Amino acid sequence: MLSRSAVEQAQARAAEILASAGIALTDAERAGIEVADFGLEDLERTGLEVVVYENNDRYCAKELVLFPGQTCPEHRHPPVNGAPGKRETFRCRQGLVRLYVEGEPTPSASARPPQGDEDYYTVSHEIELRPGEQYTIQPDTKHWFQAGEEGAVVSEFSTTSRDELDVFTDPRIRRIPEIEG
Amino acid sequence: MLSRSAVEQAQARAAEILASAGIALTDAERAGIEVADFGLEDLERTGLEVVVYENNDRYCAKELVLFPGQTCPEHRHPPVNGAPGKRETFRCRQGLVRLYVEGEPTPSASARPPQGDEDYYTVSHEIELRPGEQYTIQPDTKHWFQAGEEGAVVSEFSTTSRDELDVFTDPRIRRIPEIEG
Repeated sequence: MLSRSAVEQAQARAAEILASAGIALTDAERAGIEVADFGLEDLERTGLEVVVYENNDRYCAKELVLFPGQTCPEHRHPPVNGAPGKRETFRCRQGLVRLYVEGEPTPSASARPPQGDEDYYTVSHEIELRPGEQYTIQPDTKHWFQAGEEGAVVSEFSTTSRDELDVFTDPRIRRIPEIEG
Repeated sequence: MLSRSAVEQAQARAAEILASAGIALTDAERAGIEVADFGLEDLERTGLEVVVYENNDRYCAKELVLFPGQTCPEHRHPPVNGAPGKRETFRCRQGLVRLYVEGEPTPSASARPPQGDEDYYTVSHEIELRPGEQYTIQPDTKHWFQAGEEGAVVSEFSTTSRDELDVFTDPRIRRIPEIEG
């Protein structure tokens, strides 16, 4: 469980990173930044900070912030009521993000899964995204990503987001953050 | 018809504005910036510069650039094959954009339609968007927008974009740019 003060600290840090990338937020957006530790209680290593700009029944747009070296753990977006799962395009805005997807393993991949959690990272086809570069992830395919040493800001454009339906490889993970109090 | 050199000049100017907003493009994106004069041959007054990041059968994301005072003329996105028309969210990233939509006319609206074209601007409910502010336009509803004195950068998140189906109030308009040779 995340403490309220840990959430506020991470929100402030994420807001600062977004500001450094020239991305303006409203006060309400700043106060509503989602801080996800995926239930692993090790936010610096495994976590994600998210601003949801719009999520309706047809499309979704978010800004993702990753602290230096932070990892968003492996997951996929399964079909929903017979319709294909979420398709998403990641566009790097600042920093460097390494994305791992299904496909031929990259022999000398640069990122490493968080130590001790290697069993829950099964795909290793690497795509490096620097500012201005983007990649589209197909529905229901496994992926995970990790920021470089300076962290990263990534715009996500996608179909409707239903985070609660995401399927993670690590069975310990709880996608929806639990926050104390 | 736009001359090739007019297009290149507008592309360079749009790229510069995007860079000043901290938005990185690839070389291919820079070379592919769409310059639309809507067939009115008066780009400074009526026009739009567009970077399409992604446009697939489920969602679309673009960056829109408006030069100072430039106007995107009134149009709507009609239903397509029985499905609702395009829904789109405009998020201001830099500058000021004034958006006009259906609804109660705003008595002292700040923007004016391009002189001589007033007949083709019929909606005047004003929404001002500054950096970090956004607004979602419902399908098949008329809208137009104009940048303030310093121009504007606007992110557009939407359903699939089919520009060729847009319905403009001004019958002289041709949405798809014609570029000489």
